[in-house]
Amino acid sequence: MKHMLIAQSGGPTAAINATVAGVVERCLTSDKVDRIYGAVNGIKGVINGHYIDLTDTFASPEQLDLLCHTPSAALGSCRLKLNNADESQLKQIVDALIAKNIGYFVYIGGNDSMDTVDKLSAYIKAHNIQDLYVMGAPKTIDNDLPETDHCPGFGSAAKYIAATFTEIVRDCEVYDIPAVTIVEIMGRNAGWLTAASALSRENGGSGPQMIYLCERAFDTEKFIADVKEKLKTKNAVVVAVSEGLKNADGSYLSESKGRAVDVFGHAALSGTAKVLEGLVKDRIGCKARSIELNLMQRCASHLASANDLNESKMLGMTAADRALNGISGQMAIIVRKENEPYRVVYTTADVSLVANYEKKVPDEWINAEGNDVTEEMLEYLRPLVRGEVTTAARNGIPVHLDLYREGK
Amino acid sequence: MKHMLIAQSGGPTAAINATVAGVVERCLTSDKVDRIYGAVNGIKGVINGHYIDLTDTFASPEQLDLLCHTPSAALGSCRLKLNNADESQLKQIVDALIAKNIGYFVYIGGNDSMDTVDKLSAYIKAHNIQDLYVMGAPKTIDNDLPETDHCPGFGSAAKYIAATFTEIVRDCEVYDIPAVTIVEIMGRNAGWLTAASALSRENGGSGPQMIYLCERAFDTEKFIADVKEKLKTKNAVVVAVSEGLKNADGSYLSESKGRAVDVFGHAALSGTAKVLEGLVKDRIGCKARSIELNLMQRCASHLASANDLNESKMLGMTAADRALNGISGQMAIIVRKENEPYRVVYTTADVSLVANYEKKVPDEWINAEGNDVTEEMLEYLRPLVRGEVTTAARNGIPVHLDLYREGK
Repeated sequence: MKHMLIAQSGGPTAAINATVAGVVERCLTSDKVDRIYGAVNGIKGVINGHYIDLTDTFASPEQLDLLCHTPSAALGSCRLKLNNADESQLKQIVDALIAKNIGYFVYIGGNDSMDTVDKLSAYIKAHNIQDLYVMGAPKTIDNDLPETDHCPGFGSAAKYIAATFTEIVRDCEVYDIPAVTIVEIMGRNAGWLTAASALSRENGGSGPQMIYLCERAFDTEKFIADVKEKLKTKNAVVVAVSEGLKNADGSYLSESKGRAVDVFGHAALSGTAKVLEGLVKDRIGCKARSIELNLMQRCASHLASANDLNESKMLGMTAADRALNGISGQMAIIVRKENEPYRVVYTTADVSLVANYEKKVPDEWINAEGNDVTEEMLEYLRPLVRGEVTTAARNGIPVHLDLYREGK
Repeated sequence: MKHMLIAQSGGPTAAINATVAGVVERCLTSDKVDRIYGAVNGIKGVINGHYIDLTDTFASPEQLDLLCHTPSAALGSCRLKLNNADESQLKQIVDALIAKNIGYFVYIGGNDSMDTVDKLSAYIKAHNIQDLYVMGAPKTIDNDLPETDHCPGFGSAAKYIAATFTEIVRDCEVYDIPAVTIVEIMGRNAGWLTAASALSRENGGSGPQMIYLCERAFDTEKFIADVKEKLKTKNAVVVAVSEGLKNADGSYLSESKGRAVDVFGHAALSGTAKVLEGLVKDRIGCKARSIELNLMQRCASHLASANDLNESKMLGMTAADRALNGISGQMAIIVRKENEPYRVVYTTADVSLVANYEKKVPDEWINAEGNDVTEEMLEYLRPLVRGEVTTAARNGIPVHLDLYREGK
């Protein structure tokens, strides 16, 4: 019998380990799989032969559950884009898989990882290699992969952002003096996560007052006018912005001329929110503050979306299922059937349709003024953040699962 | 019968509303109180007569529970330090209280608020005013008030910091390339919150690798040496620093010479972590990143410590109890009797012993190298973060309580 190999790639999320759990569950309930291996640090671990045997670890249902609630990539990650120039790298990977008697390989990741799945499966087909099936499972908080309705990891990050805004907005509202708080959210080219801040108003929360996505060119004068208008009726103005906001000429706001210089005289790429904080102080003169949600938005397992974790697991199961059935070069995807009640189906798409494309927020889901999102966007987002998770804690501190210990 | 008045002051916390709930519970179970009022925006609301009648709202046990899990100051806050020069301001406040038939006033806050309680109670005594009792209840995430073993709000912020470090450390560990992540934690003069990052190692977490508190002079060369040493055995080095780190000459690190200049040419006070990020890039040359836990560390109700919320409520009850029994000019405090099992008693201290003092981390709770905390510090911290809370959510988003709507 052949073995299953799982690897993770790209930026971590709060749900990427649930996808590993899905692959493991599908294998544990199949009679076609001998051992279940994880490669450490993605495709790098495949090349270097750095494998962990997961079969016995996950014979324990508790460990499998703990895996689902452990943030970040439990198998480690990498940012390796395969060399396009020649096939030697692909040959190296395939030879390594065959040597280890791997029959099924599920690679969990974003764009670059799907490019790897695409190239690997094409190589296997072109060289007529038998009994080796490579499938992709999506992962990215950015939600920018095409074909799938949404991406595993996005719902949890969106929930973290929405919940955190409910708290930040309340914090900002306690004083009766004008103050502008600008919160920067991940997303260089796609504003999905920034849009999720709108959900913080669902249960009566008052903010954010304005939301600017990176899909629309940012107009500094319009922004200042928007803020001034809000300050007429409210002291605490909270604004959500994408890190990737761009000026009309396409340059990033964070690359503004005369940008920050650090203590060593290097040009320091100031955050987008920091630039806007300076702008508000300069042009309006009131108190201004900037906040970056930084890594917390992608690794906050304690605030994961139960729907997201469930879907992430189901996509791992789907990818594993197809590999076990002799399918290669596809990525597991979610098709949404209905918003309310929320219903989805799990299927696959040709991975070549996914690799190297970016799905952006449709322009019609941004309001005419360019400073908020529309009801259609909210309808899309709402089901994705639903469901609370219960995470393990000992003495008040979260308990996570270690599959290996990072070190040199 | 006289009325109870409650007000909140200073920076918000995740537990300050639990103290309001404690005052309310004590009053609802007493036969000495007619109505329970809240003043909006602290002592400012007392002066301006901006009161909310809370009596009927909190006849509902659900609302009282929701209050405990609502972050930030539900009654609003202020940063008003009373004028020392003359008594006219004190007279104005006392006249306002008498006019409204207030017999008991509990002011919840930090240093400045306790100064207000001190001055008010001294004024009432000096002018022989009858039937008006003013008590203080502590609140500050900084944990820097004397007399009380620890401060309400600190445990929840400490838990947020420890839990968030468990997640950030895992996020940082996924890649096999050297990278230094510097996380900045609130605290200008006291490093209690920064110390709490050490709790993230309690359940097997590997970081932070170094912890620098603002109580010790920061030595840049030692810091670089510490980081270089850690990088020998580990790729992902995570460092916790107090925002208030100071150089040997007493200047703040964030005020370093040649500091950042924003896009408008203003000297921008760069964060302490940002300064250190630049230092690591400059001196070591590896990947470096900085994170500020910002407002999230003080308003993350969803991750509050159950022990902290319980104690915060008990201190509100204690303060109210003493006022109802004709005591003035005291602050409710926690006395720790034992660490394991954790036991405390609630009593009061003369507010003049609290106002205008700052409790710092004892030097012996910092290790000899100045880059971590000692076991005594951990023993002090452990009980404070214990206990998970269940917060209300609707459609995946937290539900909070609105007592008034901020606006102009």
